Amino acid sequence: MTLYKAPLDDQRFALFDVLGAEAILTKLQGGEGHTRDLLDAVLEEAGKLSEVVLAPTNAPGDEEGCHFDKATRTVTTPKGFKDAFRQFSDGGWAGLTMAEEFGGQALPSVMGIATSEMFQSGNLAWSLYPLLSEGACHALELHGTQEQKHTYLKPIVAGRWTGTMCLTEPQAGSDLGLLKTRAEPGPDGSYKITGTKIFISAGDHDLAENILHLVLARLPDAPAGSRGISMFIVTKYKLKADGSLGERNNAYPGAIEHKMGIRGSATCVMNFDEAEGYLIGQPHKGLAAMFTMMNAARLSVGLQGLALSERALQNSLNYARERLQSRSLSGPKFPDKPADNLLVQPDVRRMLLAQRAFVEGSRALIMYAALQTDIEARGADEAARQHASELLAFLIPIAKGVVTELAQECTKEALQVYGGHGFIVENGVEQFVRDARIITLYEGTTGIQAADLLGRKILQLKGVGLQYFLAEIGAFCKAHAADEALRPYIGTLGALAKEWGELTLKLAQRIQSNPEELGAAANDYLYYSGYITLAYFWARAVAAVEKSTQQAEFKQAKRDTAAFYFARILPRTHMHKAAIEAGVETLPAIA
Amino acid sequence: MTLYKAPLDDQRFALFDVLGAEAILTKLQGGEGHTRDLLDAVLEEAGKLSEVVLAPTNAPGDEEGCHFDKATRTVTTPKGFKDAFRQFSDGGWAGLTMAEEFGGQALPSVMGIATSEMFQSGNLAWSLYPLLSEGACHALELHGTQEQKHTYLKPIVAGRWTGTMCLTEPQAGSDLGLLKTRAEPGPDGSYKITGTKIFISAGDHDLAENILHLVLARLPDAPAGSRGISMFIVTKYKLKADGSLGERNNAYPGAIEHKMGIRGSATCVMNFDEAEGYLIGQPHKGLAAMFTMMNAARLSVGLQGLALSERALQNSLNYARERLQSRSLSGPKFPDKPADNLLVQPDVRRMLLAQRAFVEGSRALIMYAALQTDIEARGADEAARQHASELLAFLIPIAKGVVTELAQECTKEALQVYGGHGFIVENGVEQFVRDARIITLYEGTTGIQAADLLGRKILQLKGVGLQYFLAEIGAFCKAHAADEALRPYIGTLGALAKEWGELTLKLAQRIQSNPEELGAAANDYLYYSGYITLAYFWARAVAAVEKSTQQAEFKQAKRDTAAFYFARILPRTHMHKAAIEAGVETLPAIA
Repeated sequence: MTLYKAPLDDQRFALFDVLGAEAILTKLQGGEGHTRDLLDAVLEEAGKLSEVVLAPTNAPGDEEGCHFDKATRTVTTPKGFKDAFRQFSDGGWAGLTMAEEFGGQALPSVMGIATSEMFQSGNLAWSLYPLLSEGACHALELHGTQEQKHTYLKPIVAGRWTGTMCLTEPQAGSDLGLLKTRAEPGPDGSYKITGTKIFISAGDHDLAENILHLVLARLPDAPAGSRGISMFIVTKYKLKADGSLGERNNAYPGAIEHKMGIRGSATCVMNFDEAEGYLIGQPHKGLAAMFTMMNAARLSVGLQGLALSERALQNSLNYARERLQSRSLSGPKFPDKPADNLLVQPDVRRMLLAQRAFVEGSRALIMYAALQTDIEARGADEAARQHASELLAFLIPIAKGVVTELAQECTKEALQVYGGHGFIVENGVEQFVRDARIITLYEGTTGIQAADLLGRKILQLKGVGLQYFLAEIGAFCKAHAADEALRPYIGTLGALAKEWGELTLKLAQRIQSNPEELGAAANDYLYYSGYITLAYFWARAVAAVEKSTQQAEFKQAKRDTAAFYFARILPRTHMHKAAIEAGVETLPAIA
Repeated sequence: MTLYKAPLDDQRFALFDVLGAEAILTKLQGGEGHTRDLLDAVLEEAGKLSEVVLAPTNAPGDEEGCHFDKATRTVTTPKGFKDAFRQFSDGGWAGLTMAEEFGGQALPSVMGIATSEMFQSGNLAWSLYPLLSEGACHALELHGTQEQKHTYLKPIVAGRWTGTMCLTEPQAGSDLGLLKTRAEPGPDGSYKITGTKIFISAGDHDLAENILHLVLARLPDAPAGSRGISMFIVTKYKLKADGSLGERNNAYPGAIEHKMGIRGSATCVMNFDEAEGYLIGQPHKGLAAMFTMMNAARLSVGLQGLALSERALQNSLNYARERLQSRSLSGPKFPDKPADNLLVQPDVRRMLLAQRAFVEGSRALIMYAALQTDIEARGADEAARQHASELLAFLIPIAKGVVTELAQECTKEALQVYGGHGFIVENGVEQFVRDARIITLYEGTTGIQAADLLGRKILQLKGVGLQYFLAEIGAFCKAHAADEALRPYIGTLGALAKEWGELTLKLAQRIQSNPEELGAAANDYLYYSGYITLAYFWARAVAAVEKSTQQAEFKQAKRDTAAFYFARILPRTHMHKAAIEAGVETLPAIA
C-alpha cells in the first residue's frame, strides 16, 4: 500500500507565494470572493477526499481492473470506484469550475487544477472519469445552444452523468483527418451516427446513470480531410421530452483494452450503429471545436504527470528514510542501527532531489498556466485577456509535453530508489511507472506537442507567446538583479532566456528554407524550452521563499532544490541545443 | 504478437568486422578451431532456436506467468517453457562455453554472449533459467573441488539440472554484510542451512529434475559483516551415493513474487530449514567467491538490456514502416496512399536512430568485454591476460550500468513510436518496457555499478583499466587520423578521451578530500564514461564498415547511425560533466 498525503503546503506555496494567485484572482471579473481563505478551505477538502477516499482505491483498482460483459455489453469498474464517484459528486466537485447557472460553483480554473492534482494523485485511473466529463462540459459551454446546455450540461455538473470524447478510430489517431464515422441527417433534426471509435476513456462504466459522448463524424456533404468533420452529441440513453432517460441508444462498447496501466479506467472500443445524435456547433467545424477544449485537456494531462510524480516522490522519500542498508561513505551516521538509511547516500539524494525539482517546478508551471486560463476568461480588459491567451497557448505544449516526459523520469527514479523491491507489485511504486506511460501518448503524443510548440506556437503565431514569456523572465531578472538569494541564478537565467530567443530565430529561418527542419528540431526544442521554463519558476520560488511564513526547514528545502536544479539539471539545455543545431541531415531516411 | 528476427548480420558485423574476433579467438590457447565459419554456424543455430522456439513463448509466458502451489510447494512455469528448455538442453546450449571434461563444448565466452543475446531477445523471462545455471557453473568451476565438479557441474552442463544464486535476504540487499542465514556443521562434513532468501530467480520450477542452490550463509564462528559469509551447495533433491536423486531437501519456495515484468521467471522466496548443504570454497570467503562470478553475471544483465532493446527496435521500426498517419512536412511522400508512413517524420526517425545507436553501440561494447573474458582466460601470455582482466573489470560496470539504463530509453522510445497503441498489451511492446525495468535493479543497481566504477575500478585500482582503454582509444585515433570517413569523429573522440582522463584525475583528488564526493559524482561519471565508450565503438564501426563486404544500404545505415550518435547523443557528456563538477554541496541532507 503506497502513501499519499495531500501536498497542501507545497500547493499553497506555489499558488500563493510563488504565483501570487490571490491578488490575481480577486481582481478578475466576478473574482472578489476568491480569497485565499476560501481557496485554502477548498484545497483542504479536496485533500481529504483524495487521501481518505481515492488513494486507497488506487492499487486495488489496478489489480482488479475493469470488466466487460459481452452478453450485456456493459463495463463494470473496480470495487470502490462507484462509491468514490458518488462522494465526489455529492461534494460538488464535478461542477467546481462550472457556471452557477448550470449548478456549478464558478471557482477559478486554477482551483480545478489544484484539486484535480490531488484527485489524480489519489487514483489516476479513477480520475479519468471526471476528467472526461470536464472536457464534455467545456465543449457544451463553448459550442452548445442554450437548450443543449440546460439539457446536457446540468446532469454532468451534478455528477449524475459523465462525458466522453470520441475522436480516435483505428486508422485515425494523430491524424484525425482520416476518420470515417458517418452522420446521416434524419427528418427530425437528429442524425444517425455510424462508425467505430477506439481508445474511448470512460466509454462505458457503472458510475453514472447516463453517458454523453461527443463524437466526431462526417456529414454526407463533408469535404475530405480535417475540414469535413462535425461534432455530435450521442447519449448512452436517449432522452424523453421531459429530459428523463428513455431507451438505450445504439452506442455500445464492443470491448475494453487490456492496458499496461490505468487499468481501472475503462478504455473502450465504441460501436455506433445508427445511433441517435445531435449536431453541436457548426457543420464541418467539429475539429476546431474539439481544439477549443484541447488546452484544458492537455493541461490536465500534464497535471497527471505532476500528480503521479508527487505520489511516487512521497513514497520513494519515505522508503529512503526507512530502508537501512550499507553505511555512509564518510562513516556510520546511525551507528546504533545495523546500517544507515538510504538518505545518507548522495546518489539517492540525487534521485530524490531530481524528483522534487521536477515535481515542484512542474506544479508552478501548471498552476501558472491555469491562472492564464482564468485571466483569459475573466481578465479586467481585453489586453490582459489577450496576453494571457497567448501565454497559455504557448505554454500548453510545454506543460503537457515536458511535464509528462519528466514524469517518466520521476516515476523511474522513484522505483530505482526501492532497488529490487520496486519491481514487486505489492510495493506499489511500479504502478506509478505503468500508469505514467500513457500520459506521453494520449491527448497528443510528445511528438505532437513538440510540433505544436515549434510549428504552431512559434512559427504560425510568430512566437508572440514566447516573446511575452521572455519579457516576463527579463522583467523578473531585472527586478531581482540585486537580490542576494538569487545571485547564483539570475545571470544563468537571463543568459538562457537570451539564448532561447536567438536560437528560436535562427531555427525559424532554417525551417523556412526546409520544413523538414521543424520535425528534426521540435523534440529537443520542446525539452530545451521546458528546462528554461522550470528554471524560471525555480528562480521565482527562491524569490518567494524569502518572504514565506513557512518553517525554516521548508524554506531550506526550496533553496536546496533550486540550487540542485540549476547546477545539475539545467545544463541539459546544452545537449538539446546541440541536437537542435545538428539539423535534419543527422536524421536521414531509414529504409 | 511481436516480431523477432535474429540480427545475424549486425552480430557478425560487430564481432568480426568491428572487433576482429576471429583473429583474436584463433590465437588464444585452444582456440585454433574457433574460426569464423564455425562461429557463424553456431550463431545461425542459436538464431533459429530464438526465432522459432523462444520468441513465440514471450508474450504468452508474460500473460500466464508462473504459478505457485502452496499445498505442494512447487512452481509451474508457463506453457512452452519446459519444451523450450528441453530443446535448449538437447542442442547442447547449456554447456556451450563449459569445459569438454564436464560435457561442455568449450566455445569462447563471446559466443556464449552472442548466442545468449538472441535467447534473451526471444524470451527474457525464460532465459533467466539458463542464465542462473551458467552462474552456478562458473562458481563450481572456479571454487568447487574436482569431486564437486563431477557431481554437480555435469548435470547442469547437460541441462538436466539448473542453478540459482541465493544471496538476498529481506534486510540484506545491496548490503550483503547484513545477511543472517546460518550454517551449522554436522558430523559428516555436511551443514544444516537455515534462513530465508528472497528474490531468488529460478528458485523453483518444473524445467529440470533438480536444482542446485548456491547459498550464502554464516558459519557459527563467522565474524560479523561481509567477511563472515561462506558459500554452500544445497540441492533441491539430495543425492544418493551413486549421484542419483534421493529424498527432497528442506529447501522450499515459500512464495513467488508478483512482479512488474519478467513474469515467466519464477522469483522465489526460498526457505531453508536445516537443509543439507556442502561448503564450496573456503570458509568466510563466500562473498569473494560470489564476486568472481559477478563479472559474467553483470555482463549478462547488460546483455539483457541490449537484447530487449534490439527486439523493441525491430518492432518499432516495423510499426513506423507500416503505420500510415499524416503527411510529410515537405509534402506527401506516398500520394497514392491515404497518408504517409511514420518514417517520413524526422522525429520518428530520431527515436529509431537513437535506439539503433544504443543497440549497436552496446553490442560492440558487450562483445568487446566478452572477448576480454576470453583473453583473460586463455590469452597467449600473462601480460595479455592481465591487460584483458583490467580492461574487463573496468568495462563491466559500464556495460551493466549504462546498457541497462539505455535500455530504459530504448524500450521507452520504441513504445512511443506506437503512440497510444503502444500502451495496449496485445501489441507487445509494453512488455519490453516492463521487462526492462528489472535490469537496472538486479545484479547491483545502477548506483552500485556507478560506485563500483568510480570507487573500485578508478580509485582502488588506480584507474589502470581506464588507462588501458584510453591508450587504446588514443592508438585508434592516431591510426585513423588521416582516414577520410572518420574525419568528423576522430577530433571529437580524441578530445573527449583527453577530457575523460583529466576529469577523472580532478575528481579523484576531490574524493580524497571528501569521500562523499564519490557518491555525488558516480552516477554522472558512469553515464559520461558510457557515452564516450559508445562513441569509440561507433568510430570503430565507421572504420570497419569501409572494409565490410555487406550491401551498400547496410553500410550506409552504419554511417548514418554513427553521424547521428556523434551529433545528437554524444553532447550529453556536457551535462554529465557539469553534474560531476557540481559536487556534493548540490546534494545536501534531506530530512
